Amino acid sequence: MYMNNQEELYGAVEAGGTKFMCALGRASGDILEEVRIETRDPASTLSQVIQFFRTAEAQRGQIRAFGVGAFGPLELRRDSPQFGFITTTPKAGWANTDLLGTLKRAFARPFGFDTDVNGAALAEWRWGAGRQLDSLVYVTVGTGIGAGVIHHGRPVHGLMHPEIGHVRVQRHPADTAFAGICPFHGDCLEGLACGPALVARTGHSLSEAGSEDPVWDIEADYLGQLCAQLVLMHSPQRILLGGGVMHQERLFAGIRARMLHWLQGYVPHPELQESGFIAAPGLGAAAGIKGALALAADSAGT
Amino acid sequence: MYMNNQEELYGAVEAGGTKFMCALGRASGDILEEVRIETRDPASTLSQVIQFFRTAEAQRGQIRAFGVGAFGPLELRRDSPQFGFITTTPKAGWANTDLLGTLKRAFARPFGFDTDVNGAALAEWRWGAGRQLDSLVYVTVGTGIGAGVIHHGRPVHGLMHPEIGHVRVQRHPADTAFAGICPFHGDCLEGLACGPALVARTGHSLSEAGSEDPVWDIEADYLGQLCAQLVLMHSPQRILLGGGVMHQERLFAGIRARMLHWLQGYVPHPELQESGFIAAPGLGAAAGIKGALALAADSAGT
Repeated sequence: MYMNNQEELYGAVEAGGTKFMCALGRASGDILEEVRIETRDPASTLSQVIQFFRTAEAQRGQIRAFGVGAFGPLELRRDSPQFGFITTTPKAGWANTDLLGTLKRAFARPFGFDTDVNGAALAEWRWGAGRQLDSLVYVTVGTGIGAGVIHHGRPVHGLMHPEIGHVRVQRHPADTAFAGICPFHGDCLEGLACGPALVARTGHSLSEAGSEDPVWDIEADYLGQLCAQLVLMHSPQRILLGGGVMHQERLFAGIRARMLHWLQGYVPHPELQESGFIAAPGLGAAAGIKGALALAADSAGT
Repeated sequence: MYMNNQEELYGAVEAGGTKFMCALGRASGDILEEVRIETRDPASTLSQVIQFFRTAEAQRGQIRAFGVGAFGPLELRRDSPQFGFITTTPKAGWANTDLLGTLKRAFARPFGFDTDVNGAALAEWRWGAGRQLDSLVYVTVGTGIGAGVIHHGRPVHGLMHPEIGHVRVQRHPADTAFAGICPFHGDCLEGLACGPALVARTGHSLSEAGSEDPVWDIEADYLGQLCAQLVLMHSPQRILLGGGVMHQERLFAGIRARMLHWLQGYVPHPELQESGFIAAPGLGAAAGIKGALALAADSAGT
């Protein structure tokens, strides 16, 4: 592995459906400068991204390497002609966008590239709530539901990358009337439990749902089922839950209780009972941009 | 990594609930000698295992290292006082058995230790139907349902090890009356789709169910749901399905069709449509014992 020089500059891009966060930082995870760019069409958005880094280089000197953590689905296979593309996203204008290639044509440097959630999982593993673990799942519950997975200290790719938001769950008995909002699956986990699903079910915004609202019991059950499935499928040492929906902090205890309910004692490890097994991200909202910075630092030797 | 000498001898133990297979072999995967020992109580079974390897050493010379692939659940964390134990198995007499310690006291050599299915996955990755892949899931559908997972070329452990058989599935519309047989969960995947569940549902043995029996449509749906969940959770490059139930070869096409049904086009990769994505193990019934041999060879440098 390339040994990062702590004086060198790295460029980080957290590419989201609402905003692109761009930052200049160090291999240590320190952020020197950051900008928020609204996500519009690919050409004008990426043009602003490139302009930010050109200006930063003019002021501070050359960037050693870049890292990009992006919304997906993405093509991550290096031997594919579409490597670095956002592929089948329903986001208008962004399907089949050559995100990585556009940035590489502007900057001939090493580039790390992964999903936003794999990047965030990597940052949490390196600097946040997953330090000294071998395996970790980072879940974000917001506009959608996505997860990054670390095994053996590295993000999981495989054929594509995990798309954990679309697993199926058992219907909560008090939630049989709502059809779910996933355009592919209707009532998959994301269709039932992402932020917009909560809004569609209750007719009011998340901030209007008080902590006693019964919708949180339904939400805790679905996310508890997800955590039980993650334990059985991935056997992680910790599950981190972030994203806008998790601002309702009473969810954590409810999710833990429902995870244990669904496992029915099959996995006897006492760690599952501990409050730290399902936890908030240690880096908070910075996990995404720091993830892109980690991807940049890791790419420097390649 | 230790470079294995192709002349050296390795000891392999595939520890199952019905039988213990013991073999002497090479780091290349070649088996020189093999014996089947019926699984009785731990003391007498392990005494026979030890006797087999003592006799083999007297005849052929010293064994370099051993590998054990075992039924579980197992304690795989090296820093645990129970490292190497079979923990909470319902198999009579075997809960809290110090499997690895008993063998280590007889032979002071390096020992590799993992689940039988992780071992089989490793053997398939190295010598079988998973060569040149980065990620792979090996599922056995027999007395129970278990799976080994390879990411980055290594078996997944984490907190424990995956226990994929116990994930939940959606009920097939023609299968609402059967309660399932899992003592923990009732109608989890294993409770609905393992061999004994098929027998309990139909009242006749697997070999009596002709290939036109509608029970195979139900089985293909449940295993198709498993494969869809594996794609979303693990994004493997290939899924191998082995075990006694998979002797009904018409299952493969049905499982593939049901996996695609449950994914609803969300993962667009054409590889999922190919017949090789869900395949039979390349090593057939030898995957388990060769897995133990792979664990032995990998432990030699430790």
